[in-house]
Amino acid sequence: TIYGITPTYSRLAQKADLTRLSQTLMLVKNFHWIIIEDSETKTKLVENLLKESGLKYTHLNVKTHKAKHSTASGVEQRNAALDWLKGHLNQIEDKKGVVYFMDDDNTYSLKVFDEMRKIKRVGVWPVGIVGGMRVEMPLVTDGKISGFNAVWKPFRPFPIDMAGFAINSTLFLDYPEAKFSRKVQSGFQESEILKYFTTKEAMEPLAEFCTKVYVWHTRTQHPSILNVKKLKHPPVPDDHIEV
Amino acid sequence: TIYGITPTYSRLAQKADLTRLSQTLMLVKNFHWIIIEDSETKTKLVENLLKESGLKYTHLNVKTHKAKHSTASGVEQRNAALDWLKGHLNQIEDKKGVVYFMDDDNTYSLKVFDEMRKIKRVGVWPVGIVGGMRVEMPLVTDGKISGFNAVWKPFRPFPIDMAGFAINSTLFLDYPEAKFSRKVQSGFQESEILKYFTTKEAMEPLAEFCTKVYVWHTRTQHPSILNVKKLKHPPVPDDHIEV
Ligand SMILES: O=c1ccn([C@@H]2O[C@H](COP(=O)(O)OP(=O)(O)O)[C@@H](O)[C@H]2O)c(=O)[nH]1
Ligand SMILES: O=c1ccn([C@@H]2O[C@H](COP(=O)(O)OP(=O)(O)O)[C@@H](O)[C@H]2O)c(=O)[nH]1
Ligand SMILES: [Mn+2]
Ligand SMILES: [Mn+2]
Repeated sequence: TIYGITPTYSRLAQKADLTRLSQTLMLVKNFHWIIIEDSETKTKLVENLLKESGLKYTHLNVKTHKAKHSTASGVEQRNAALDWLKGHLNQIEDKKGVVYFMDDDNTYSLKVFDEMRKIKRVGVWPVGIVGGMRVEMPLVTDGKISGFNAVWKPFRPFPIDMAGFAINSTLFLDYPEAKFSRKVQSGFQESEILKYFTTKEAMEPLAEFCTKVYVWHTRTQHPSILNVKKLKHPPVPDDHIEV
Repeated sequence: TIYGITPTYSRLAQKADLTRLSQTLMLVKNFHWIIIEDSETKTKLVENLLKESGLKYTHLNVKTHKAKHSTASGVEQRNAALDWLKGHLNQIEDKKGVVYFMDDDNTYSLKVFDEMRKIKRVGVWPVGIVGGMRVEMPLVTDGKISGFNAVWKPFRPFPIDMAGFAINSTLFLDYPEAKFSRKVQSGFQESEILKYFTTKEAMEPLAEFCTKVYVWHTRTQHPSILNVKKLKHPPVPDDHIEV
Protein backbone atom coordinates (compact mmCIF):
# COMPACT_ATOMS: atom_id res chain seq x y z
CA THR A 1 0.00 0.00 0.00
CA ILE A 2 1.11 3.52 -0.75
CA TYR A 3 -0.01 5.86 2.04
CA GLY A 4 -0.19 9.37 0.61
CA ILE A 5 -0.26 12.04 3.34
CA THR A 6 -1.75 15.36 2.20
CA PRO A 7 -2.31 18.43 4.36
CA THR A 8 -4.83 20.82 2.82
CA TYR A 9 -6.34 24.20 3.65
CA SER A 10 -9.29 26.25 2.53
CA ARG A 11 -8.65 28.65 -0.38
CA LEU A 12 -10.26 29.48 -3.70
CA ALA A 13 -8.34 26.92 -5.76
CA GLN A 14 -8.54 24.15 -3.13
CA LYS A 15 -11.29 22.15 -4.81
CA ALA A 16 -9.62 22.48 -8.22
CA ASP A 17 -6.28 21.30 -6.84
CA LEU A 18 -7.79 18.40 -4.90
CA THR A 19 -9.95 17.42 -7.88
CA ARG A 20 -7.07 17.02 -10.29
CA LEU A 21 -4.93 15.32 -7.68
CA SER A 22 -7.72 12.88 -6.82
CA GLN A 23 -8.15 12.06 -10.50
CA THR A 24 -4.47 11.13 -10.72
CA LEU A 25 -4.79 8.97 -7.60
CA MET A 26 -7.74 7.08 -9.12
CA LEU A 27 -5.19 5.52 -11.48
CA VAL A 28 -2.86 4.32 -8.69
CA LYS A 29 -3.34 0.76 -7.41
CA ASN A 30 -3.29 0.03 -3.67
CA PHE A 31 -3.32 3.66 -2.70
CA HIS A 32 -4.64 4.98 0.62
CA TRP A 33 -5.06 8.75 0.85
CA ILE A 34 -4.68 10.32 4.28
CA ILE A 35 -5.93 13.84 3.95
CA ILE A 36 -5.70 16.24 6.89
CA GLU A 37 -7.52 19.53 6.82
CA ASP A 38 -5.85 22.51 8.44
CA SER A 39 -9.08 23.54 10.15
CA GLU A 40 -11.02 23.32 13.40
CA THR A 41 -13.61 21.07 11.80
CA LYS A 42 -13.85 18.91 8.72
CA THR A 43 -15.45 20.68 5.76
CA LYS A 44 -18.25 19.38 3.58
CA LEU A 45 -16.24 20.34 0.52
CA VAL A 46 -13.40 17.93 1.33
CA GLU A 47 -15.72 15.27 2.75
CA ASN A 48 -17.86 15.15 -0.40
CA LEU A 49 -14.87 15.25 -2.70
CA LEU A 50 -13.33 12.25 -0.94
CA LYS A 51 -16.61 10.30 -0.89
CA GLU A 52 -17.28 10.89 -4.56
CA SER A 53 -13.73 10.05 -5.58
CA GLY A 54 -14.13 6.35 -4.87
CA LEU A 55 -10.62 6.38 -3.38
CA LYS A 56 -9.63 4.57 -0.21
CA TYR A 57 -9.11 7.42 2.25
CA THR A 58 -8.85 8.63 5.83
CA HIS A 59 -10.12 12.12 6.58
CA LEU A 60 -8.55 13.95 9.54
CA ASN A 61 -8.30 17.55 10.67
CA VAL A 62 -6.11 19.62 12.93
CA LYS A 63 -5.76 23.38 12.98
CA THR A 64 -2.28 24.90 12.77
CA HIS A 65 -1.39 27.33 15.53
CA LYS A 66 1.57 28.99 13.93
CA ALA A 67 4.33 30.18 16.19
CA LYS A 68 5.90 33.51 15.29
CA HIS A 69 9.28 31.92 14.56
CA SER A 70 7.93 29.00 12.54
CA THR A 71 5.64 29.44 9.58
CA ALA A 72 6.11 25.95 8.12
CA SER A 73 2.94 24.46 6.65
CA GLY A 74 1.62 21.01 7.31
CA VAL A 75 3.65 20.11 10.42
CA GLU A 76 0.75 19.31 12.77
CA GLN A 77 -1.23 17.79 9.90
CA ARG A 78 1.48 15.35 8.83
CA ASN A 79 2.14 14.39 12.46
CA ALA A 80 -1.56 13.69 12.99
CA ALA A 81 -1.47 11.46 9.93
CA LEU A 82 1.57 9.58 11.23
CA ASP A 83 -0.18 8.99 14.58
CA TRP A 84 -3.22 7.64 12.77
CA LEU A 85 -0.99 5.48 10.56
CA LYS A 86 0.83 3.85 13.47
CA GLY A 87 -2.47 2.93 15.08
CA HIS A 88 -3.70 1.57 11.75
CA LEU A 89 -0.58 -0.51 11.05
CA ASN A 90 -0.74 -1.99 14.54
CA GLN A 91 -4.24 -3.24 13.77
CA ILE A 92 -3.68 -4.84 10.38
CA GLU A 93 -1.85 -7.98 9.30
CA ASP A 94 -0.11 -6.76 6.18
CA LYS A 95 1.98 -3.79 7.32
CA LYS A 96 3.93 -3.57 4.06
CA GLY A 97 3.79 -0.20 2.37
CA VAL A 98 5.41 3.17 1.84
CA VAL A 99 4.61 6.62 3.16
CA TYR A 100 4.70 9.56 0.75
CA PHE A 101 4.16 13.18 1.79
CA MET A 102 2.13 14.76 -1.01
CA ASP A 103 1.29 18.46 -1.09
CA ASP A 104 -2.07 19.14 -2.66
CA ASP A 105 -0.81 21.47 -5.41
CA ASN A 106 2.12 19.42 -6.72
CA THR A 107 2.01 17.44 -9.96
CA TYR A 108 2.56 13.69 -9.76
CA SER A 109 3.23 11.50 -12.77
CA LEU A 110 1.90 7.97 -12.37
CA LYS A 111 5.50 6.82 -12.76
CA VAL A 112 6.54 8.15 -9.37
CA PHE A 113 4.16 5.67 -7.73
CA ASP A 114 5.70 2.78 -9.64
CA GLU A 115 9.13 3.85 -8.43
CA MET A 116 8.19 3.93 -4.77
CA ARG A 117 6.99 0.33 -4.80
CA LYS A 118 10.69 -0.65 -5.13
CA ILE A 119 11.65 0.97 -1.81
CA LYS A 120 13.36 -1.10 0.88
CA ARG A 121 13.85 1.67 3.47
CA VAL A 122 14.01 5.17 1.99
CA GLY A 123 13.85 5.99 -1.72
CA VAL A 124 14.74 9.32 -3.34
CA TRP A 125 14.30 10.92 -6.77
CA PRO A 126 14.48 14.35 -8.47
CA VAL A 127 11.79 17.01 -8.05
CA GLY A 128 11.09 19.47 -10.86
CA ILE A 129 10.69 23.26 -10.52
CA VAL A 130 11.70 23.79 -6.92
CA GLY A 131 14.20 25.71 -4.83
CA GLY A 132 14.98 28.15 -7.64
CA MET A 133 16.06 25.32 -9.96
CA ARG A 134 14.63 23.47 -12.94
CA VAL A 135 15.26 20.33 -10.92
CA GLU A 136 16.61 19.56 -7.46
CA MET A 137 18.16 16.12 -7.51
CA PRO A 138 20.36 13.67 -5.68
CA LEU A 139 23.67 13.04 -7.48
CA VAL A 140 24.48 9.37 -7.96
CA THR A 141 27.92 7.79 -8.29
CA ASP A 142 28.27 4.03 -8.72
CA GLY A 143 24.65 3.55 -7.73
CA LYS A 144 24.98 5.49 -4.46
CA ILE A 145 23.98 9.04 -3.52
CA SER A 146 27.19 11.10 -3.53
CA GLY A 147 25.64 14.52 -3.06
CA PHE A 148 22.72 16.76 -3.91
CA ASN A 149 22.12 19.36 -6.58
CA ALA A 150 20.45 22.19 -4.67
CA VAL A 151 21.05 25.91 -4.52
CA TRP A 152 18.46 26.87 -1.89
CA LYS A 153 20.03 26.23 1.54
CA PRO A 154 22.47 23.62 0.25
CA PHE A 155 23.69 23.24 3.84
CA ARG A 156 20.49 21.38 4.74
CA PRO A 157 21.37 17.83 5.96
CA PHE A 158 19.10 16.50 3.19
CA PRO A 159 18.60 19.31 0.67
CA ILE A 160 15.56 17.70 -0.98
CA ASP A 161 11.88 18.54 -1.21
CA MET A 162 9.06 16.66 0.55
CA ALA A 163 7.97 15.29 -2.85
CA GLY A 164 11.39 13.74 -3.47
CA PHE A 165 11.33 10.75 -1.13
CA ALA A 166 9.15 8.03 0.37
CA ILE A 167 9.68 5.84 3.43
CA ASN A 168 8.89 2.20 4.19
CA SER A 169 5.84 2.39 6.43
CA THR A 170 7.06 -0.19 8.97
CA LEU A 171 9.95 2.13 9.85
CA PHE A 172 7.41 4.37 11.56
CA LEU A 173 6.66 1.46 13.91
CA ASP A 174 10.37 0.86 14.48
CA TYR A 175 10.97 4.55 15.24
CA PRO A 176 7.68 5.74 16.75
CA GLU A 177 9.28 9.01 17.86
CA ALA A 178 9.87 10.07 14.22
CA LYS A 179 7.90 13.19 13.45
CA PHE A 180 8.00 16.71 12.04
CA SER A 181 8.88 19.61 14.30
CA ARG A 182 7.95 23.28 14.71
CA LYS A 183 11.40 23.89 16.18
CA VAL A 184 13.46 23.70 13.00
CA GLN A 185 14.14 26.50 10.53
CA SER A 186 12.33 26.73 7.22
CA GLY A 187 13.36 24.07 4.72
CA PHE A 188 14.48 21.62 7.39
CA GLN A 189 11.29 19.55 7.73
CA GLU A 190 12.48 17.00 5.20
CA SER A 191 15.81 16.62 7.01
CA GLU A 192 13.98 16.43 10.34
CA ILE A 193 11.98 13.35 9.38
CA LEU A 194 14.67 11.67 7.27
CA LYS A 195 17.30 11.80 10.01
CA TYR A 196 15.42 9.11 11.97
CA PHE A 197 15.65 6.58 9.17
CA THR A 198 18.59 7.01 6.89
CA THR A 199 21.90 8.51 5.90
CA LYS A 200 22.87 9.94 2.55
CA GLU A 201 24.75 6.74 1.71
CA ALA A 202 21.85 4.45 2.62
CA MET A 203 19.24 6.19 0.47
CA GLU A 204 17.97 4.27 -2.54
CA PRO A 205 18.26 6.34 -5.75
CA LEU A 206 15.17 5.70 -7.89
CA ALA A 207 13.82 7.13 -11.18
CA GLU A 208 16.69 5.67 -13.24
CA PHE A 209 19.36 6.61 -10.71
CA CYS A 210 17.82 10.05 -10.21
CA THR A 211 17.95 11.11 -13.85
CA LYS A 212 14.19 11.35 -14.48
CA VAL A 213 11.64 13.90 -13.24
CA TYR A 214 8.36 12.25 -12.22
CA VAL A 215 7.10 14.92 -9.81
CA TRP A 216 6.95 18.71 -10.00
CA HIS A 217 6.60 21.28 -7.24
CA THR A 218 4.00 23.24 -9.18
CA ARG A 219 2.03 26.00 -7.52
CA THR A 220 -1.41 27.24 -8.47
CA GLN A 221 -1.67 31.01 -8.88
CA HIS A 222 -3.67 32.78 -6.21
CA PRO A 223 -6.40 34.39 -8.31
CA SER A 224 -7.39 37.98 -7.75
CA ILE A 225 -11.10 38.40 -7.29
CA LEU A 226 -12.81 41.74 -7.84
CA ASN A 227 -14.80 43.29 -5.04
CA VAL A 228 -18.03 43.08 -7.01
CA LYS A 229 -20.07 44.98 -4.44
CA LYS A 230 -18.33 48.16 -5.53
CA LEU A 231 -19.37 47.76 -9.16
CA LYS A 232 -22.03 49.87 -10.84
CA HIS A 233 -23.73 46.74 -12.15
CA PRO A 234 -23.00 44.09 -9.53
CA PRO A 235 -23.58 40.51 -10.63
CA VAL A 236 -26.13 38.17 -9.07
CA PRO A 237 -24.71 36.81 -5.76
CA ASP A 238 -22.90 33.47 -6.17
CA ASP A 239 -22.12 32.55 -2.57
CA HIS A 240 -24.42 29.54 -2.76
CA ILE A 241 -22.27 28.01 -5.50
CA GLU A 242 -19.41 25.77 -4.31
CA VAL A 243 -16.25 26.53 -6.32
CA THR B 1 -16.52 11.02 -29.17
CA ILE B 2 -15.32 14.05 -27.24
CA TYR B 3 -12.73 15.95 -29.29
CA GLY B 4 -10.60 17.97 -26.85
CA ILE B 5 -8.64 20.73 -28.61
CA THR B 6 -5.58 21.90 -26.65
CA PRO B 7 -3.03 24.48 -27.80
CA THR B 8 0.24 24.22 -25.88
CA TYR B 9 3.57 26.02 -25.78
CA SER B 10 7.01 25.39 -24.40
CA ARG B 11 7.66 26.61 -20.84
CA LEU B 12 9.06 25.22 -17.62
CA ALA B 13 5.77 23.86 -16.27
CA GLN B 14 4.54 22.54 -19.63
CA LYS B 15 5.30 18.88 -18.97
CA ALA B 16 3.82 19.08 -15.47
CA ASP B 17 0.62 20.67 -16.77
CA LEU B 18 0.27 18.24 -19.67
CA THR B 19 1.04 15.29 -17.41
CA ARG B 20 -1.73 15.99 -14.93
CA LEU B 21 -4.17 16.86 -17.69
CA SER B 22 -3.35 13.64 -19.58
CA GLN B 23 -3.92 11.65 -16.39
CA THR B 24 -7.40 13.12 -16.08
CA LEU B 25 -8.11 12.33 -19.73
CA MET B 26 -7.11 8.67 -19.19
CA LEU B 27 -10.32 8.35 -17.18
CA VAL B 28 -12.58 9.76 -19.93
CA LYS B 29 -14.21 7.27 -22.30
CA ASN B 30 -14.31 7.92 -26.06
CA PHE B 31 -11.98 10.84 -25.85
CA HIS B 32 -9.77 12.05 -28.71
CA TRP B 33 -7.11 14.62 -27.80
CA ILE B 34 -6.09 17.07 -30.51
CA ILE B 35 -3.01 18.80 -29.24
CA ILE B 36 -1.42 21.59 -31.23
CA GLU B 37 2.02 22.89 -30.34
CA ASP B 38 2.67 26.58 -30.77
CA SER B 39 6.03 25.91 -32.43
CA GLU B 40 7.79 25.59 -35.76
CA THR B 41 8.29 21.87 -35.25
CA LYS B 42 6.82 19.18 -33.03
CA THR B 43 8.83 18.59 -29.86
CA LYS B 44 10.04 15.24 -28.53
CA LEU B 45 8.67 16.21 -25.11
CA VAL B 46 5.07 16.42 -26.31
CA GLU B 47 5.44 13.53 -28.74
CA ASN B 48 6.71 11.15 -26.04
CA LEU B 49 4.17 12.32 -23.50
CA LEU B 50 1.33 11.61 -25.94
CA LYS B 51 2.73 8.22 -26.94
CA GLU B 52 3.22 7.09 -23.36
CA SER B 53 -0.22 8.32 -22.28
CA GLY B 54 -2.07 5.58 -24.14
CA LEU B 55 -4.64 8.19 -25.16
CA LYS B 56 -6.17 8.47 -28.61
CA TYR B 57 -4.58 11.63 -29.98
CA THR B 58 -3.66 13.77 -32.95
CA HIS B 59 -0.47 15.81 -32.72
CA LEU B 60 -0.26 19.02 -34.76
CA ASN B 61 1.85 22.16 -34.69
CA VAL B 62 1.62 25.70 -35.95
CA LYS B 63 3.62 28.68 -34.76
CA THR B 64 1.78 31.84 -33.71
CA HIS B 65 2.84 35.01 -35.49
CA LYS B 66 1.32 37.52 -33.14
CA ALA B 67 0.13 40.75 -34.60
CA LYS B 68 0.80 43.89 -32.57
CA HIS B 69 -2.88 44.54 -32.00
CA SER B 70 -3.80 40.95 -31.13
CA THR B 71 -2.06 38.98 -28.45
CA ALA B 72 -4.69 36.26 -28.09
CA SER B 73 -3.26 32.79 -27.50
CA GLY B 74 -4.24 29.67 -29.36
CA VAL B 75 -6.05 31.20 -32.34
CA GLU B 76 -4.00 29.60 -35.14
CA GLN B 77 -3.67 26.39 -33.13
CA ARG B 78 -7.40 25.91 -32.57
CA ASN B 79 -8.11 26.75 -36.23
CA ALA B 80 -5.57 24.16 -37.35
CA ALA B 81 -7.32 21.62 -35.14
CA LEU B 82 -10.71 22.50 -36.63
CA ASP B 83 -9.31 22.04 -40.14
CA TRP B 84 -7.96 18.65 -39.20
CA LEU B 85 -11.25 17.73 -37.54
CA LYS B 86 -13.36 18.56 -40.59
CA GLY B 87 -11.13 16.37 -42.76
CA HIS B 88 -11.37 13.59 -40.20
CA LEU B 89 -15.15 13.74 -39.84
CA ASN B 90 -15.55 13.66 -43.61
CA GLN B 91 -13.64 10.38 -43.65
CA ILE B 92 -15.43 8.50 -40.90
CA GLU B 93 -18.89 6.97 -40.67
CA ASP B 94 -19.87 7.96 -37.13
CA LYS B 95 -19.58 11.74 -37.06
CA LYS B 96 -21.33 12.08 -33.70
CA GLY B 97 -19.38 13.93 -31.06
CA VAL B 98 -18.65 17.21 -29.33
CA VAL B 99 -15.79 19.67 -29.60
CA TYR B 100 -14.33 21.11 -26.39
CA PHE B 101 -11.59 23.76 -26.31
CA MET B 102 -9.33 22.80 -23.41
CA ASP B 103 -6.44 24.99 -22.25
CA ASP B 104 -3.54 22.95 -20.93
CA ASP B 105 -3.42 24.55 -17.47
CA ASN B 106 -7.12 24.43 -16.55
CA THR B 107 -8.60 21.91 -14.13
CA TYR B 108 -11.29 19.56 -15.42
CA SER B 109 -13.47 17.42 -13.19
CA LEU B 110 -14.52 14.15 -14.80
CA LYS B 111 -18.09 15.39 -14.39
CA VAL B 112 -17.72 18.04 -17.08
CA PHE B 113 -17.18 15.30 -19.67
CA ASP B 114 -20.36 13.53 -18.59
CA GLU B 115 -22.28 16.77 -19.03
CA MET B 116 -21.11 17.41 -22.56
CA ARG B 117 -22.34 14.03 -23.77
CA LYS B 118 -25.87 15.45 -23.37
CA ILE B 119 -25.30 18.25 -25.89
CA LYS B 120 -27.61 18.60 -28.89
CA ARG B 121 -26.05 21.74 -30.42
CA VAL B 122 -24.20 23.95 -27.91
CA GLY B 123 -23.97 23.29 -24.17
CA VAL B 124 -22.82 25.76 -21.50
CA TRP B 125 -21.89 25.59 -17.81
CA PRO B 126 -20.14 27.69 -15.12
CA VAL B 127 -16.35 28.12 -14.98
CA GLY B 128 -14.63 28.62 -11.65
CA ILE B 129 -11.97 31.25 -10.84
CA VAL B 130 -12.03 33.37 -13.95
CA GLY B 131 -12.62 36.95 -15.05
CA GLY B 132 -12.07 38.34 -11.55
CA MET B 133 -14.87 36.20 -10.13
CA ARG B 134 -15.21 33.04 -8.06
CA VAL B 135 -17.38 31.77 -10.87
CA GLU B 136 -18.53 33.10 -14.23
CA MET B 137 -21.85 31.51 -15.08
CA PRO B 138 -24.88 31.62 -17.32
CA LEU B 139 -28.06 32.59 -15.47
CA VAL B 140 -30.99 30.27 -16.05
CA THR B 141 -34.69 31.09 -15.86
CA ASP B 142 -37.29 28.41 -16.58
CA GLY B 143 -34.62 26.18 -18.07
CA LYS B 144 -33.34 28.81 -20.52
CA ILE B 145 -30.29 31.10 -20.42
CA SER B 146 -31.57 34.53 -19.40
CA GLY B 147 -28.24 36.26 -18.96
CA PHE B 148 -24.66 35.85 -17.79
CA ASN B 149 -22.91 36.57 -14.52
CA ALA B 150 -19.67 38.20 -15.63
CA VAL B 151 -17.86 41.35 -14.53
CA TRP B 152 -14.95 41.33 -17.00
CA LYS B 153 -16.19 42.84 -20.27
CA PRO B 154 -19.83 42.00 -19.58
CA PHE B 155 -20.64 43.58 -22.97
CA ARG B 156 -19.17 40.56 -24.76
CA PRO B 157 -21.88 38.89 -26.89
CA PHE B 158 -21.21 35.67 -24.95
CA PRO B 159 -19.36 36.63 -21.76
CA ILE B 160 -18.12 33.11 -21.03
CA ASP B 161 -14.73 31.42 -20.96
CA MET B 162 -13.47 28.89 -23.51
CA ALA B 163 -13.82 26.18 -20.85
CA GLY B 164 -17.52 26.91 -20.37
CA PHE B 165 -19.03 25.42 -23.52
CA ALA B 166 -18.81 22.59 -26.03
CA ILE B 167 -20.22 22.25 -29.53
CA ASN B 168 -21.72 19.34 -31.48
CA SER B 169 -18.97 18.33 -33.88
CA THR B 170 -21.21 17.97 -36.92
CA LEU B 171 -21.98 21.71 -36.73
CA PHE B 172 -18.42 22.32 -37.93
CA LEU B 173 -19.35 20.48 -41.13
CA ASP B 174 -22.58 22.47 -41.46
CA TYR B 175 -20.73 25.77 -40.95
CA PRO B 176 -17.24 25.11 -42.36
CA GLU B 177 -16.41 28.83 -42.22
CA ALA B 178 -16.62 28.84 -38.39
CA LYS B 179 -13.25 29.67 -36.88
CA PHE B 180 -11.36 31.87 -34.45
CA SER B 181 -10.04 35.23 -35.59
CA ARG B 182 -7.05 37.47 -34.94
CA LYS B 183 -9.23 40.47 -35.75
CA VAL B 184 -11.33 40.59 -32.58
CA GLN B 185 -10.42 42.27 -29.32
CA SER B 186 -9.21 40.31 -26.29
CA GLY B 187 -11.91 38.20 -24.66
CA PHE B 188 -13.98 37.93 -27.82
CA GLN B 189 -12.68 34.60 -29.16
CA GLU B 190 -15.46 32.65 -27.42
CA SER B 191 -18.11 34.97 -28.88
CA GLU B 192 -16.43 34.75 -32.28
CA ILE B 193 -16.82 30.99 -32.56
CA LEU B 194 -20.19 30.74 -30.79
CA LYS B 195 -21.88 33.28 -33.06
CA TYR B 196 -21.81 30.78 -35.95
CA PHE B 197 -23.83 28.19 -34.07
CA THR B 198 -26.14 29.57 -31.46
CA THR B 199 -27.94 32.37 -29.70
CA LYS B 200 -28.20 32.97 -25.99
CA GLU B 201 -31.72 31.50 -25.99
CA ALA B 202 -30.73 28.36 -27.89
CA MET B 203 -27.86 27.37 -25.60
CA GLU B 204 -28.34 24.27 -23.47
CA PRO B 205 -27.67 24.96 -19.78
CA LEU B 206 -25.85 21.95 -18.29
CA ALA B 207 -24.29 21.16 -14.89
CA GLU B 208 -27.64 21.18 -13.09
CA PHE B 209 -28.91 24.28 -14.89
CA CYS B 210 -25.56 26.02 -14.46
CA THR B 211 -25.42 25.73 -10.68
CA LYS B 212 -22.37 23.43 -10.42
CA VAL B 213 -18.70 24.14 -11.08
CA TYR B 214 -16.99 21.27 -12.90
CA VAL B 215 -14.12 23.20 -14.49
CA TRP B 216 -11.73 25.83 -13.15
CA HIS B 217 -9.58 28.35 -15.00
CA THR B 218 -6.55 27.59 -12.84
CA ARG B 219 -3.14 28.94 -13.76
CA THR B 220 0.20 27.47 -12.85
CA GLN B 221 2.66 29.93 -11.32
CA HIS B 222 5.59 30.84 -13.52
CA PRO B 223 8.48 29.71 -11.34
CA SER B 224 11.51 31.91 -10.84
CA ILE B 225 14.73 30.10 -11.56
CA LEU B 226 18.06 31.33 -10.17
CA ASN B 227 20.86 32.12 -12.55
CA VAL B 228 23.09 29.43 -11.08
CA LYS B 229 26.11 30.38 -13.14
CA LYS B 230 26.56 33.43 -10.93
CA LEU B 231 26.72 31.37 -7.75
CA LYS B 232 29.92 30.78 -5.80
CA HIS B 233 29.22 27.04 -5.72
CA PRO B 234 27.32 26.35 -8.93
CA PRO B 235 25.48 23.05 -9.08
CA VAL B 236 26.21 20.28 -11.57
CA PRO B 237 24.65 21.18 -14.96
CA ASP B 238 21.16 19.70 -15.41
CA ASP B 239 20.39 20.65 -19.02
CA HIS B 240 20.35 16.98 -20.04
CA ILE B 241 17.41 16.30 -17.69
CA GLU B 242 13.94 16.77 -19.20
CA VAL B 243 11.70 18.61 -16.71
O1 LIG C 1 -1.76 27.24 6.02
C1 LIG C 1 -1.53 26.24 5.35
C2 LIG C 1 -0.76 26.30 4.15
C3 LIG C 1 -0.53 25.12 3.46
N1 LIG C 1 -1.05 23.92 3.87
C4 LIG C 1 -0.80 22.69 3.09
O2 LIG C 1 0.55 22.35 3.24
C5 LIG C 1 1.10 21.87 2.00
C6 LIG C 1 2.25 22.77 1.55
O3 LIG C 1 1.75 24.09 1.38
P1 LIG C 1 2.01 24.93 0.03
O4 LIG C 1 1.73 24.08 -1.15
O5 LIG C 1 1.28 26.22 0.13
O6 LIG C 1 3.58 25.17 0.17
P2 LIG C 1 4.68 25.46 -0.94
O7 LIG C 1 4.06 25.35 -2.31
O8 LIG C 1 5.14 26.84 -0.63
O9 LIG C 1 5.74 24.41 -0.71
C7 LIG C 1 -0.04 21.87 0.98
O10 LIG C 1 -0.57 20.57 0.85
C8 LIG C 1 -1.04 22.85 1.59
O11 LIG C 1 -2.37 22.54 1.25
C9 LIG C 1 -1.80 23.86 5.03
O12 LIG C 1 -2.27 22.78 5.41
N2 LIG C 1 -2.02 25.02 5.74
O1 LIG D 1 2.06 31.78 -26.56
C1 LIG D 1 1.18 30.97 -26.21
C2 LIG D 1 0.48 31.10 -24.98
C3 LIG D 1 -0.49 30.16 -24.66
N1 LIG D 1 -0.76 29.11 -25.49
C4 LIG D 1 -1.79 28.11 -25.10
O2 LIG D 1 -3.05 28.73 -25.20
C5 LIG D 1 -3.90 28.33 -24.12
C6 LIG D 1 -4.31 29.55 -23.30
O3 LIG D 1 -3.14 30.16 -22.77
P1 LIG D 1 -2.97 30.50 -21.22
O4 LIG D 1 -3.38 29.32 -20.39
O5 LIG D 1 -1.59 31.03 -20.98
O6 LIG D 1 -4.04 31.67 -21.09
P2 LIG D 1 -4.86 32.21 -19.85
O7 LIG D 1 -4.57 31.33 -18.64
O8 LIG D 1 -4.34 33.60 -19.66
O9 LIG D 1 -6.28 32.16 -20.26
C7 LIG D 1 -3.10 27.32 -23.29
O10 LIG D 1 -3.48 26.00 -23.63
C8 LIG D 1 -1.67 27.61 -23.66
O11 LIG D 1 -0.82 26.47 -23.58
C9 LIG D 1 -0.09 28.99 -26.70
O12 LIG D 1 -0.33 28.02 -27.42
N2 LIG D 1 0.88 29.91 -27.03
MN1 LIG E 1 2.84 23.75 -2.89
MN1 LIG F 1 -4.65 29.22 -18.73
